[in-house]
Amino acid sequence: MNQLVRPKELFKLSATQIAAGIAQGAFTAEAVVRACLDRIAERDPLIRAWAAIDPEKSLEHARRLDRSSSRGPLHGVPFGVKDVIDTADFPTQMGSVLYKGHHARFDAACVALARNAGAIALGKTATAELAGTAPPATRNPLNPDRTPGGSSSGSGAAVADCMVPVAYGTQTGGSTLRPAAFCGVIGFKPTFGTYNPVGIKPAAVSFDTLGLIARTLDDIELFHAVLVGDKPDPACMPQTAPRIGICRTHLWENAQPETMHAIEDATRRLQAAGATIREVALPDGFEHLTAHRAVINAHERVHGLAAEWFTGRDGLTPQMIRTCETGIAISRTEYVKALVHVERSRMAIEESFTDVDVLLTPTAPGEAPVGLEYAGDPRFQELWTLLHVPTITLPTHSGPNGLPVGIQLVMRRYQEPQLFAVARWIEDRLGRG
Amino acid sequence: MNQLVRPKELFKLSATQIAAGIAQGAFTAEAVVRACLDRIAERDPLIRAWAAIDPEKSLEHARRLDRSSSRGPLHGVPFGVKDVIDTADFPTQMGSVLYKGHHARFDAACVALARNAGAIALGKTATAELAGTAPPATRNPLNPDRTPGGSSSGSGAAVADCMVPVAYGTQTGGSTLRPAAFCGVIGFKPTFGTYNPVGIKPAAVSFDTLGLIARTLDDIELFHAVLVGDKPDPACMPQTAPRIGICRTHLWENAQPETMHAIEDATRRLQAAGATIREVALPDGFEHLTAHRAVINAHERVHGLAAEWFTGRDGLTPQMIRTCETGIAISRTEYVKALVHVERSRMAIEESFTDVDVLLTPTAPGEAPVGLEYAGDPRFQELWTLLHVPTITLPTHSGPNGLPVGIQLVMRRYQEPQLFAVARWIEDRLGRG
Repeated sequence: MNQLVRPKELFKLSATQIAAGIAQGAFTAEAVVRACLDRIAERDPLIRAWAAIDPEKSLEHARRLDRSSSRGPLHGVPFGVKDVIDTADFPTQMGSVLYKGHHARFDAACVALARNAGAIALGKTATAELAGTAPPATRNPLNPDRTPGGSSSGSGAAVADCMVPVAYGTQTGGSTLRPAAFCGVIGFKPTFGTYNPVGIKPAAVSFDTLGLIARTLDDIELFHAVLVGDKPDPACMPQTAPRIGICRTHLWENAQPETMHAIEDATRRLQAAGATIREVALPDGFEHLTAHRAVINAHERVHGLAAEWFTGRDGLTPQMIRTCETGIAISRTEYVKALVHVERSRMAIEESFTDVDVLLTPTAPGEAPVGLEYAGDPRFQELWTLLHVPTITLPTHSGPNGLPVGIQLVMRRYQEPQLFAVARWIEDRLGRG
Repeated sequence: MNQLVRPKELFKLSATQIAAGIAQGAFTAEAVVRACLDRIAERDPLIRAWAAIDPEKSLEHARRLDRSSSRGPLHGVPFGVKDVIDTADFPTQMGSVLYKGHHARFDAACVALARNAGAIALGKTATAELAGTAPPATRNPLNPDRTPGGSSSGSGAAVADCMVPVAYGTQTGGSTLRPAAFCGVIGFKPTFGTYNPVGIKPAAVSFDTLGLIARTLDDIELFHAVLVGDKPDPACMPQTAPRIGICRTHLWENAQPETMHAIEDATRRLQAAGATIREVALPDGFEHLTAHRAVINAHERVHGLAAEWFTGRDGLTPQMIRTCETGIAISRTEYVKALVHVERSRMAIEESFTDVDVLLTPTAPGEAPVGLEYAGDPRFQELWTLLHVPTITLPTHSGPNGLPVGIQLVMRRYQEPQLFAVARWIEDRLGRG
């Protein structure tokens, strides 16, 4: 198939197809990078997904790979790096005037691992200020009047718009899954701690999680294997149809009709396909997690930003100043109380998986909202970020404006291979929205 | 009292005495800084505790504070910053040639908080390479032929030698408590996550913990209050004598006679002073924690150092290369298995406190070993680092060479005020070794 791809259309390929095509000699890394850069040149004046690119450097890197005899699993694959993640070559400007022109000494661990596997960092993707709630100027490629979601706005938009097949996001609330869902692609957040966070600017250290945005599950698994340093585990494909727990959560009333429809339609069709379906209510007390997360997030945020707060407050947005002021008002006692409640909830969520293999739950309230000032409601995603469990959003449905609506799959901690397997089973049956 | 201190002897004062003396007008911040700098000039050619100082800048900072009307709780107090912790002014060189001349954009959160409270960072204290096991050239001020411990070698030596009243350490194994014990001062590690880690170079992210080294419990509490953003809690002093659990651990046979004597002597004298004493055995399976820690540490270390490993391996020491090679050989399955075991142990340790208020356990096998190449055995400390519980070492005893031997107090998570109170009760009864 790859040999039939015209050079100008290489930007449409997945990372897996690119790696295979280069390995087979169907095309060069240089041709792939050139196609992606052309796509960026054409589209990014409108979409504004990128905070920094360096076409000459990327092409030179691609040519070096084309001449090299070593062949890592990501050989020649371009990817995007959210601009709160350090790179030794590109600036890392955090979406904040406080980091204008900032250059890190070394790549973040996740960037170094991908590069060592042969991937080509095409540049830095636009981020909300310090991965918070003040979004960049990025537009949703499916409708430029709407937000792409945030805080990994540029990563969501760049992948959805085929500027790059895969990009890194970070998620402290819903910053990876929400932009993926709003832009109609796949977003994945592993178990907390799975991808090493060294070189990533922290937001709230007790639940910050690096994640992936891609257009195919193959690509998620390909990068996942590189980041954890293991081979993909092909043995996890379910032998029988999965047992799926439908989890509306205490936030269900915040879901818009298109999201309610997506969950109900998925339930019906998956049941028809042989899945065992059961309603799963969250354990008692979980309705308080939204409030506890707000306490922990604000407290850790303002402590982590102590230097910026004391010496650069004028360079913070009103949104960030508000978060910090909330954090300052929280006592240590209140913070510890929230932490302890959340830790208990992390144990309690295990019970929710007693009779099911996976939870199916909304990703976001609905389609991407109109406007670029607000990146959308993170509550349906942040619950799982807080609980440290791996989640994935699939773009299986669409809403009243023809924009994508995702469904979110949640798995037990450390069961990423099982999550990928169930996600494939579900994607095969539901297709794209 | 402070008014009787001669200017040349101001370096001997605690942080608490310095803050009080400046507030009372007994002396200036400039005089304190000058006395500490003179002490460094006199002693550091031998001790080599400092990786970077800047006398003119520190004096200028002190004069600025002397002119200022604001009065934070650390006003005019000099402190030392381990050189894996970012500072915006001093270089942050990590004890590694890979970070030669490296300057961070912003102070680490812990530095910003102390500076905002009026403290004066006097410089960067020497660290083992990247807070690992290859020590700096620092000597033990009590006997220059012996190690001061590590990896916070400079922080331990600088505080013990009265170059500065307080210094920051970091502990992933025993890197704060061991140098404190070997140098005869107090080392404190709070519950994991208590001090925000932003701006501190990670070693093993799932148990890296910022800690404090000081000569008095007052000073530990003073800095603790600033770092957590709360007032000290004076209500925690025990009304009755504490219930103390003597915990020999599975490592007891690694204790040298001086440490066995310290634990047994402390037990006898505290019982005589009214404490309830009981032997506490660690729960079943805890003997495997030493091995599990090695797995997690090596895996997280090599993932976190991915950039340095792939692009700067020639700049790593043989010790670090060995740790990284160990890490590379560990599969994700093995790593997750160790993580899960450790998480269960973190819950199980709570039971050990059912009938006691605090555990009393060895800090280190014995006195500081001879030689500067090996910073000593971290196993007695790393167990508690791994378990996330707060611990403190008190210099209550001494060994056959007249060098200090510490005892370690361990508390439930989040009970720092209670730990301080019990430590005071014990210090009052045992005195200094």
